[in-house]
Amino acid sequence: MATKPEFLLIGPGGVGCIAAFTINYNHTANVSIVVRRDYETVRKHGYHIDSVDYGKVDGWKPENVFASVEEASKSGIKFDYIAVSTKNLQDIVPVEELIAPVVSAHSVVVLVQNGFGIEKPLFAKFPQNIVLSGVSHIGSHNRNGHIHQMQSDHLVISAFENPNVDADSQVAAANRFIEMYSNNINKCVYFASAKWYRYRKLVYNACLNTTCALTGVDTGRLEAAGGLEAIAIPAMKEVIRVAKADGVELPDDVINVVCHADDGDYFEPSMRVDVKKGNPIELEAILGNLLDTARKLKVETPILDLLFKLLTVVQFRLKEANGYVGVPEKRPIPDTFFK
Amino acid sequence: MATKPEFLLIGPGGVGCIAAFTINYNHTANVSIVVRRDYETVRKHGYHIDSVDYGKVDGWKPENVFASVEEASKSGIKFDYIAVSTKNLQDIVPVEELIAPVVSAHSVVVLVQNGFGIEKPLFAKFPQNIVLSGVSHIGSHNRNGHIHQMQSDHLVISAFENPNVDADSQVAAANRFIEMYSNNINKCVYFASAKWYRYRKLVYNACLNTTCALTGVDTGRLEAAGGLEAIAIPAMKEVIRVAKADGVELPDDVINVVCHADDGDYFEPSMRVDVKKGNPIELEAILGNLLDTARKLKVETPILDLLFKLLTVVQFRLKEANGYVGVPEKRPIPDTFFK
Repeated sequence: MATKPEFLLIGPGGVGCIAAFTINYNHTANVSIVVRRDYETVRKHGYHIDSVDYGKVDGWKPENVFASVEEASKSGIKFDYIAVSTKNLQDIVPVEELIAPVVSAHSVVVLVQNGFGIEKPLFAKFPQNIVLSGVSHIGSHNRNGHIHQMQSDHLVISAFENPNVDADSQVAAANRFIEMYSNNINKCVYFASAKWYRYRKLVYNACLNTTCALTGVDTGRLEAAGGLEAIAIPAMKEVIRVAKADGVELPDDVINVVCHADDGDYFEPSMRVDVKKGNPIELEAILGNLLDTARKLKVETPILDLLFKLLTVVQFRLKEANGYVGVPEKRPIPDTFFK
Repeated sequence: MATKPEFLLIGPGGVGCIAAFTINYNHTANVSIVVRRDYETVRKHGYHIDSVDYGKVDGWKPENVFASVEEASKSGIKFDYIAVSTKNLQDIVPVEELIAPVVSAHSVVVLVQNGFGIEKPLFAKFPQNIVLSGVSHIGSHNRNGHIHQMQSDHLVISAFENPNVDADSQVAAANRFIEMYSNNINKCVYFASAKWYRYRKLVYNACLNTTCALTGVDTGRLEAAGGLEAIAIPAMKEVIRVAKADGVELPDDVINVVCHADDGDYFEPSMRVDVKKGNPIELEAILGNLLDTARKLKVETPILDLLFKLLTVVQFRLKEANGYVGVPEKRPIPDTFFK
């Protein structure tokens, strides 16, 4: 058997931790992780995992635990796979800059993140690298190094289409990753079109995440208040129109399926949870990049446009609260004639 | 001199309390107030007033303090003037129902409240009564019976045009009220068109209150985040178009004046403050009634429409938090095919 591949995970939240654990469990790669917030705890005690798939595991650690991407880079390890499962905060921590120190010519990057168009900044910075799309349907969270996985791991892998790399190599990389990741417990499957899959996810995320984030409710109360029919469904129709103009035909019943996705649950979408916690939101990944595409394709999206403009103000507030932007102590008087 | 008129104030907040105090100070009417939240305190100790206009007054009480409108009604007093300075929460506490027990044929109602179209439900219920518009430019608040007035009283009085009452009587009633209210300290002036004045106020309120309420910022941060130009100004243009279709020409520089209204201040509009405090918002008065008028006049208002739909969901959340609406413990599964 050849040397094992080197796998690096950046962003060990509930999803990422189970991914790193899985590959370590499979013995299919040497596993390294970059841990920032919980570094000291994890270094000393490892993770406490309570998993519907793997049971209870106390003090789990992979081969290497790094405090930063720079430290991972200094290790001299050439990473074959770099999986990123941080929040995608393009306007705060661009993924392409975050991972730059560890990317080498042969690295395959795997974005296990929400959103649309998130591969584009990577292709711009690393034109020859393969970038895989990982859409996770797991239910798992990380609270200070305690991982609680409530829902079995189901990961959908595709290759984002890099025009500079031949298609076969990209598909082969996706399949190698699936082989490395799969076992007899989880479900890790190949899906041919990352683009289709991510448009399909946007029908939910670009419409329900955004509306719930702005109004401060879960999807159940959104429906009870009339906002599902008044706001979210018209927004979904705009996503479907952009997809169509971009060559992606979504199923006829997609709106119905999405509206029933949380049946029985007062579910708070991730962007709503971020606003509630005072964290920045994945605004570009979940909405902004879609609107860039809509503009290029000359599709009108008046509802999504206004949701985006409102959320841009919310993001400003969240960035200020987290120290990313500031305002002068006394409000400056604008030297503008507004009209 | 004839018998003094009977004046009743409902809603003794910062604005209303100074109004009642003023008329009592002027000895131009017998003053009664309905106090709900602070009834016991006010009954025993009166109000503590710290006023830029009248100085410090300890333990002020008018002739009558009632715990409810019903109690005021049971007193047998026939009120000549009924001033209402509660929040205008048309969808929760309709003013016409609130005041019904004390309205008699000759009562003049004075709405010292934010908003547009707020006279219509009163004309529907009391077709023969005169309803005056009071727009207050005071700075004053009430914290548990302590009134702090920071900004001199400036009240603009007009008659809402009741088509069932001759115009001269309405103007005369407005002038009688002004005479009763004015003194050598305050400023209480007549303005011929309530409609014009309230459209003018909506250029600010329907656009800045709403946008700041949804995004959780003050008007300074709204500007810093780009939301003034991206959202609020386009919304103002919609208000101006509705006004124009309704026969009201606003000045050419109104947008500029409104955008500079808070120069130097990080000002939180009242609707933003209500959301922050978890109180219901004046949604119909500040936006909903305007959109009803826009529909009748066939003026398109896409931005204001979406702001209204979003705020309807926010209002649902605020109503739930205040016990006005509820949802089942387990989310019901909708028996709907969404499309």
